[in-house]
Amino acid sequence: MPADLKNVFSQIDADYENLKALLKEAVAIQSVSGDPSKRDETIRMVHWMKKHLEEIGVTCNLADLGTQQLEGKTVQLPPVLLGTLGTDKTKKTLLVYGHLDVQPAAKSDGWDTEPFELVEKDGKLFGRGSSDDKGPVLCWLHAIRAAQKNNIELPVNIKFCFEAMEESGSVGLEQLLIREKDGFLAGTDFVCISDSYWLGTKKPCLTYGLRGICSFFVEVTGIKQDLHSGVFGGVVHEPLQDLIYVMSQLTTVDNRIKIPGIYSQVATLSATEEKTYDEIEFDVAEFRDSVGAKHLPTEDKKTLLLRRWREPSLAFHGIEGAFYGPGEKTVIPSKVIGKFSIRIVPDMQPEDVNKITIDYLNKVWAERGSPNTFKPRPGHSAKPWVVDVNDANFLAGARAMKIVHGVEPDRIREGCSIPITLTFQELTGKSVLLLPLGAADDMAHSQNEKNNKWNYVEGVKTLLAYILELGNV
Amino acid sequence: MPADLKNVFSQIDADYENLKALLKEAVAIQSVSGDPSKRDETIRMVHWMKKHLEEIGVTCNLADLGTQQLEGKTVQLPPVLLGTLGTDKTKKTLLVYGHLDVQPAAKSDGWDTEPFELVEKDGKLFGRGSSDDKGPVLCWLHAIRAAQKNNIELPVNIKFCFEAMEESGSVGLEQLLIREKDGFLAGTDFVCISDSYWLGTKKPCLTYGLRGICSFFVEVTGIKQDLHSGVFGGVVHEPLQDLIYVMSQLTTVDNRIKIPGIYSQVATLSATEEKTYDEIEFDVAEFRDSVGAKHLPTEDKKTLLLRRWREPSLAFHGIEGAFYGPGEKTVIPSKVIGKFSIRIVPDMQPEDVNKITIDYLNKVWAERGSPNTFKPRPGHSAKPWVVDVNDANFLAGARAMKIVHGVEPDRIREGCSIPITLTFQELTGKSVLLLPLGAADDMAHSQNEKNNKWNYVEGVKTLLAYILELGNV
Repeated sequence: MPADLKNVFSQIDADYENLKALLKEAVAIQSVSGDPSKRDETIRMVHWMKKHLEEIGVTCNLADLGTQQLEGKTVQLPPVLLGTLGTDKTKKTLLVYGHLDVQPAAKSDGWDTEPFELVEKDGKLFGRGSSDDKGPVLCWLHAIRAAQKNNIELPVNIKFCFEAMEESGSVGLEQLLIREKDGFLAGTDFVCISDSYWLGTKKPCLTYGLRGICSFFVEVTGIKQDLHSGVFGGVVHEPLQDLIYVMSQLTTVDNRIKIPGIYSQVATLSATEEKTYDEIEFDVAEFRDSVGAKHLPTEDKKTLLLRRWREPSLAFHGIEGAFYGPGEKTVIPSKVIGKFSIRIVPDMQPEDVNKITIDYLNKVWAERGSPNTFKPRPGHSAKPWVVDVNDANFLAGARAMKIVHGVEPDRIREGCSIPITLTFQELTGKSVLLLPLGAADDMAHSQNEKNNKWNYVEGVKTLLAYILELGNV
Repeated sequence: MPADLKNVFSQIDADYENLKALLKEAVAIQSVSGDPSKRDETIRMVHWMKKHLEEIGVTCNLADLGTQQLEGKTVQLPPVLLGTLGTDKTKKTLLVYGHLDVQPAAKSDGWDTEPFELVEKDGKLFGRGSSDDKGPVLCWLHAIRAAQKNNIELPVNIKFCFEAMEESGSVGLEQLLIREKDGFLAGTDFVCISDSYWLGTKKPCLTYGLRGICSFFVEVTGIKQDLHSGVFGGVVHEPLQDLIYVMSQLTTVDNRIKIPGIYSQVATLSATEEKTYDEIEFDVAEFRDSVGAKHLPTEDKKTLLLRRWREPSLAFHGIEGAFYGPGEKTVIPSKVIGKFSIRIVPDMQPEDVNKITIDYLNKVWAERGSPNTFKPRPGHSAKPWVVDVNDANFLAGARAMKIVHGVEPDRIREGCSIPITLTFQELTGKSVLLLPLGAADDMAHSQNEKNNKWNYVEGVKTLLAYILELGNV
């Protein structure tokens, strides 16, 4: 590590209380994009970030996305924040993506602290968005500010694309990016996204693959309104009984998918690729304990990682329209919608997966023989993504991690989907790097989301080192 | 019909505007027992009824039931109104039960009119509680007032037990009645409850049986908190997949119960009893259309009525802990609780039903072979109730209906449970008559609840005739 960078890193360490204070402000803004009653807060979050980017000299523009229909109402979409820092034609240009919105959270969901109040405890910063994705977004801000304080010239121009609808399907973003292909996106040389996680809690990694997703809604109706289960129990075909039967036919106890043909679309695993799994540092027992399971469907390291990263999986999310409160309610629900999704991997195509899944659902329904009305339909989908781990952008990220952490990062994939990754790759034609800053146990989307103090501070250093390393490409 | 009764009936017809005005007042009191913010209104309803009973000479006493915990707050329970009209030791005593509270209602639920404003339209009186159970309760008041106006001496003493927690599990009532076994309840000869419905819309009926209920909760856990379905999909045993599998093993497509032994506890159907089903007026097509179903599991009149009234049924209510909102949420729920209930009939005992059901659930779970944690448990239960259709109380009711409607009422059962029926029978040791006044399409508990003008007025006459007929026992 160069001596002057060491000095900057010490300053970053010393500046911790300020770094934390800004994250506290960001977490306090309840930018839950999925909740129409929080839409004003979500929009306010975009303006808050714009102000802070402008303070470090970023020229900002808010791209209007119009409105959307949400729970029967027309609501304004949050604008996308497009920022430009530096327009030096002799330099290459880095495009940074992040998101400012968060998943819903309430203390009553089982949080130990108020989710929208950042609380530090045992070296952990608890709060919704602390890790997904407000923390990493602020790391970019802090990294650039640290360079500026020390009069370090940034070797690349930087563009920012920060949206506030990521947790709700990034409504409107892809269309905006397509419109901006020859505008804002023009001249991009590298793309970097910090919106994923390390494989464990200690060793850094770089991500070269993501699963895609196909969501499904299975609606069953058949009676015109909810019925009293005493008066009508036993003499109607219950939509919820039909739905539960159909859902029960989708997976095995070990969470393998029963849809015919679903595994045959998966890309063949070469001996070379399989070998890379041997080298990855991953503790199955620690993983099992972190989720709180007694046993896992497989506890072999390689098989488990393959299932997470390069095999499809099917998860049940819930049922809309049935009784969901505590206690008892003796009602027969009239209209129920089952929700599940399938994570997909190369070479699976969403259209094919949608087709074989809907076909299978219809076949199961025909076998069921119920007179009720069955309407399965696909929801949103996203393609899987995988890249070359040896391109310049990827290697710059790896060197940055080595500078900060002293070790070569693992090359991993993720089981989740970040659809915008593929959009950036396709529109810019350039390399997209997923550079995770958070630990595997950060509990994004769940109760007690946190960002480790250490990961947050080292994240600032990593992004600074990465920006500087891009100057050597 | 005696000529003087004919005259009284004409007066009742002529008094319609006054009967309606009082029901309008009662409906306007928003006595929603399940809503803590409406508790004051619920208590006010009891005082309102007390005032009106006192006007006709009833000695009233409010039995305090203390407090309850509701949505985290301690709230006062509405008192039970205990009234006594007549203490003549040479006369027999009738005990009347009814309830003054109602189900929740809001125009936004899909009502065509304001639910707490009684609106007359096409011979129907729309309003929450117009039929369940404020209308029938007021019929008692009007019937006695009509007798008094005409100087007709009541041939029985009458006691009133009007509660205001029926729609919320009758909290505290059973304990009060047990305490009053040798107090207020002492000396009761007949019990009458008007809190159920005709089988159709035209022909009156008397109810001689009710199903009981056994509720169940099936909890599955196994991961310590909700997980991201992308990151963890495919490598954990999902509690919701396990639960849905277990629930799918409970019934057939035609809503028959798969729990071994469940039907063998049902009392044998004698040829005599079976024959009574031939005589009952019931239009299967009208019933099917009223629920909006394309087909029913059976469309044979007798089989359908047997399934509703004297066979067990199993209904699914919903799942607690899974995603229930609109749209998508790609989460793997960590703790889910399936809710279902079994309606039971003579000679099924709740303890036996609980045992075979839990045993079956455990057997299905063992076959499933999941490492997750499975906790099935019974919820509340109520015994079924059935009485002799030829006892004096029942026959007095039948004669009253014949006087008013000119036809012999059908003898029917109900599929639902009114647990207090059995409590009255067990504590008084006397016959309990369910004497329905409302039509099958009154939509109790649902949107657009109504009481037909005709049913309301004829109900007053029926109760008066019934009181007078009890004098002939």
